[in-house]
Amino acid sequence: MITDDDRSFLGLAIEQARIGWEEGGIPIGAALVHEGEVLAVGRNRRVQLGSAIRHGETDCIENAGRLPAKVYRASTLYTTLSPCFMCAGTSVLYDIPRIVVGENTSFEASESWLRSRGVVVDLVDDPVCRELMDTMMREKPDLWAEDIGEES
Amino acid sequence: MITDDDRSFLGLAIEQARIGWEEGGIPIGAALVHEGEVLAVGRNRRVQLGSAIRHGETDCIENAGRLPAKVYRASTLYTTLSPCFMCAGTSVLYDIPRIVVGENTSFEASESWLRSRGVVVDLVDDPVCRELMDTMMREKPDLWAEDIGEES
Repeated sequence: MITDDDRSFLGLAIEQARIGWEEGGIPIGAALVHEGEVLAVGRNRRVQLGSAIRHGETDCIENAGRLPAKVYRASTLYTTLSPCFMCAGTSVLYDIPRIVVGENTSFEASESWLRSRGVVVDLVDDPVCRELMDTMMREKPDLWAEDIGEES
Repeated sequence: MITDDDRSFLGLAIEQARIGWEEGGIPIGAALVHEGEVLAVGRNRRVQLGSAIRHGETDCIENAGRLPAKVYRASTLYTTLSPCFMCAGTSVLYDIPRIVVGENTSFEASESWLRSRGVVVDLVDDPVCRELMDTMMREKPDLWAEDIGEES
């Protein structure tokens, strides 16, 4: 179930996605929230940092720094796009119990696996998230292929 | 099947693990090899960089920089320790077809999942890799718990 708070935290992730796009990057953002407190936000920084591992979710988790297991286990990860297997695997490593997904029309790979591991995956299906991805996939298809390990 | 070349490339990963331990970090290392050429090495840098995402394998993949999909798809990832789900998920994202694992006695989480996704996982069962982990788990159990998202 998506609450007003969820929409508000997803808004922080969307803001990160927009910043990333304005920087010339891939418009995907994330936020990590622990019991109502925002621990970190992050965005895909493949272009900005020449990175192969800084997706929105992993950048956010990296920005949150080293955390005790019990914090991850009581946190929710917000992401504008359904997570790839790297980001899903990172969530599973740290036992993050819930992921709120902005949209999964542009890309979806890991949701059934996450659910099979006990993760709650809640979909917002947000039109702004979809539009950011639509624009990027139209204007920079090769960059998007690279980001998900596909040949362009 | 493990070849002499595999043992040699695993040796580079072990060297990284030793460097990491001498730095005060977690002794896990990795190497990414494409058609006999070493693209990058890396090591767990949780302590060194205050990082939540720099495991041996992800640090190595990050050090390799942005690569075309076809390079990952013809590469082998060498790691001193069986990959966690973050590192396994990163390999699946990039369709790395083969992972050579130094040892899986200290830790094993993702191997059956990797195989179910078509990844070849070859185990060396190397005593040096085991010894590095044994020492660390004895001397720094809390650090190890943190690295795999467990409560200490």
